Amino acid sequence: MTQQIPYKIYLNEEEMPKTWYNLRADMKNKPAPLLSPATHQPVTAEDLQPVFCDELVKQELDNDTRDFEIPQQIRDFYKMYRPSPLVRAYCLEEKLQTPAKIYYKFEGNNTSGSHKLNSAIAQAYYAKNQGLKGVTTETGAGQWGTALSMACGYLGLDCKVYMVKVSYEQKPFRREVMRTYGASVTPSPSDTTNVGRAILAAHPGTGGSLGCAISEAVEAAVSTPGYRYVLGSVLNQVLLHQSVIGLESKIAMDKYGIKPDMIIGCAGGGSNLGGLIAPFMGEKLRGEADYQIIAVEPASCPSLTRGKFAYDFCDTGMVCPLAKMYTLGSGFMPSPNHAGGLRYHGMSSILSQLYHDGYIEARSVEQTKVFEAAQLFARTEGILPAPESSHAIRAAIDEALKCKETGEEKTILFGLTGTGYFDLYAYANYNDGTMTDYIPTDADIEASLKNLPDID
Amino acid sequence: MTQQIPYKIYLNEEEMPKTWYNLRADMKNKPAPLLSPATHQPVTAEDLQPVFCDELVKQELDNDTRDFEIPQQIRDFYKMYRPSPLVRAYCLEEKLQTPAKIYYKFEGNNTSGSHKLNSAIAQAYYAKNQGLKGVTTETGAGQWGTALSMACGYLGLDCKVYMVKVSYEQKPFRREVMRTYGASVTPSPSDTTNVGRAILAAHPGTGGSLGCAISEAVEAAVSTPGYRYVLGSVLNQVLLHQSVIGLESKIAMDKYGIKPDMIIGCAGGGSNLGGLIAPFMGEKLRGEADYQIIAVEPASCPSLTRGKFAYDFCDTGMVCPLAKMYTLGSGFMPSPNHAGGLRYHGMSSILSQLYHDGYIEARSVEQTKVFEAAQLFARTEGILPAPESSHAIRAAIDEALKCKETGEEKTILFGLTGTGYFDLYAYANYNDGTMTDYIPTDADIEASLKNLPDID
Repeated sequence: MTQQIPYKIYLNEEEMPKTWYNLRADMKNKPAPLLSPATHQPVTAEDLQPVFCDELVKQELDNDTRDFEIPQQIRDFYKMYRPSPLVRAYCLEEKLQTPAKIYYKFEGNNTSGSHKLNSAIAQAYYAKNQGLKGVTTETGAGQWGTALSMACGYLGLDCKVYMVKVSYEQKPFRREVMRTYGASVTPSPSDTTNVGRAILAAHPGTGGSLGCAISEAVEAAVSTPGYRYVLGSVLNQVLLHQSVIGLESKIAMDKYGIKPDMIIGCAGGGSNLGGLIAPFMGEKLRGEADYQIIAVEPASCPSLTRGKFAYDFCDTGMVCPLAKMYTLGSGFMPSPNHAGGLRYHGMSSILSQLYHDGYIEARSVEQTKVFEAAQLFARTEGILPAPESSHAIRAAIDEALKCKETGEEKTILFGLTGTGYFDLYAYANYNDGTMTDYIPTDADIEASLKNLPDID
Repeated sequence: MTQQIPYKIYLNEEEMPKTWYNLRADMKNKPAPLLSPATHQPVTAEDLQPVFCDELVKQELDNDTRDFEIPQQIRDFYKMYRPSPLVRAYCLEEKLQTPAKIYYKFEGNNTSGSHKLNSAIAQAYYAKNQGLKGVTTETGAGQWGTALSMACGYLGLDCKVYMVKVSYEQKPFRREVMRTYGASVTPSPSDTTNVGRAILAAHPGTGGSLGCAISEAVEAAVSTPGYRYVLGSVLNQVLLHQSVIGLESKIAMDKYGIKPDMIIGCAGGGSNLGGLIAPFMGEKLRGEADYQIIAVEPASCPSLTRGKFAYDFCDTGMVCPLAKMYTLGSGFMPSPNHAGGLRYHGMSSILSQLYHDGYIEARSVEQTKVFEAAQLFARTEGILPAPESSHAIRAAIDEALKCKETGEEKTILFGLTGTGYFDLYAYANYNDGTMTDYIPTDADIEASLKNLPDID
């Protein structure tokens, strides 16, 4: 194996991005605005300010400013775990015997175990900068809660995490990481909020849901002076912060004269995919370059490939603004046998619009095939990938195998969003041969879509 | 915060070491030879070859060759997760308000979560190269077993891990990582070996011990054609492979003109400390430079600070060769409230000799103080450290606080051996305020030392 491209490309600190890139500035068809759940009119800054901190409201609503400066303190924090490596998957290429050149941007080398930290530190910073006392959020699997706890621990900001009760009980390790970083972690539903108490009264034994945890976190934020609510995906602001992934990738590739033919990312709410593709999509929108861009979602939660492009509630509690997006309906829940994340019923409005306009392809994959790819990747590239990330691995391997058939030397870039250290129950299922697949029927999806709000 | 030294120094791949450094070549007083348990005579290559593969036997017994070439395939594997970053702890320095300059070499950015992979790939490589079919080993907490599984998975070598039964049951996640990499993991004691069956017959409900697991792994290796036994610490060969930690550190520091005043490492069997200090200690032994070198061990398992320098068995089963080392007696077991690793009763013969000759200092720390340091480190530097590594963090913080008092601008280098993602039960104890300390009494240690073999 001789080559000029190293196994891992690390940028120098001076080469790291100093601005985030706002993809919306280059979109001709802007993402549809959020609507107030009460009036169905576009939300204003005033509508959002009780929930989100001021600077983040600006970022959320700004479709025009192309570059946002990354504040120095956030850049310093980024230096603790960034630049993340752009890895040439030499070992995987050799294992597959493919002429394709495979690269991945690895975002798992931090204690949160994922890319979520990129936005968590930004959101916590703006809250601190506004003189706020703390933030609230919800977490299911725990990646986002961990990332936010780390950011708040660093800045000395209170962090209240509502963790879906069943996860709280089944994932004590995630909970303890958050506590170690100083967060308070409350199993949801809880008796600390009106909505929690109401749900507990109606369903005494419930294990909770993400929708309920969101509602509790929002209530806690708006009812506690000096607190705001933060969210780890879906929102425009989150995709803005996550653009650091794509910007670093592009700088590293440009440095070595590498041009990807295709860019592949897993897609749940869209935070990773939106960040990874941002500068490449910018070139594509401006007509400067072309890239094949592929979103990979679970067959059990196929919002892009089988959902409807429509206004829908962002939360199952229906208290948050409405977003226009590809959605399976806000009540959609993937089958309990679905192991990883990527279980959100909708998709970022930005990505939904780009997909609707034909700039992105989408495909769905079944989880046993995903874990097969994850295992192969672990054994050849040495990293135990998160189930979420493994959706992108699956698609990248499939594309590399197509190249093997055709002889094409395509250059593939995919996003390896994180590690699977806290997902080993799912790996155990796969190792034991007891993992199954689940694909919702058309009737399942139709039933869920019946509850869409009636907005054109 | 302005500085010329970056937060993280990564070597280029061309700068990575091409040879391991054998510290023994520069020692005037060589480490005492291993003795046969049957004859009490120094072991020969022939004695060791049924247990270890041939090249490793050579490395184990060679006190003279200074540099060993790192085979290309191992260097390629290293490139998947190395170079590891040398990190300037700017945030910790600021938090402590110390004039000290603190650096740490971080070995946790790989799926095994520790430095153990450096020797695992070497040992697996030589086994594969000798045409062997597989290797056996034992694991307690699971770091070593995970590292070996990863190396064997990569090379396509069978890997049989005997995992202490109580860990097997309490740490299903560690077990599943190993299985994902293709290892077979057997709870020990098991009915697959004579020694396991005997122990099960005598103690039907036992949770097992590391000593028993070692005995089973050795029996499985010597009784199965094409298999050898491998070990993750203590041995000379392991310290040789781990020298890559110190070599990379020194190259990075030399590149930026940094000279450490003191080097701090945690010490259990000695694999990390021996590797971290190797090239620095070489200069010290050759009279070219001086460094203060500090081994940090748990107060609950204080082999250097309270043990005896004598020949002792390396395993509780007393089937392995005898080593001259600082030891608490091969039957010594730290109290069950001891949370982390570093629970080996003895210490690498190389480090024991250097400590005996005054080249190394040693100190012991209590675990609540260790976790206090771990939590502070996590919140300021963003990395959740392994309990083992946190012993070194504790000592580094203490030294930095001394500098704050005296105003000295000392440069401190410590080894951050790994991450604590699989040690969250211990963190939970600390977070709950239920963690306690334990220091063995003099009588405890005297009683354990009564069973030393009678060898001068």
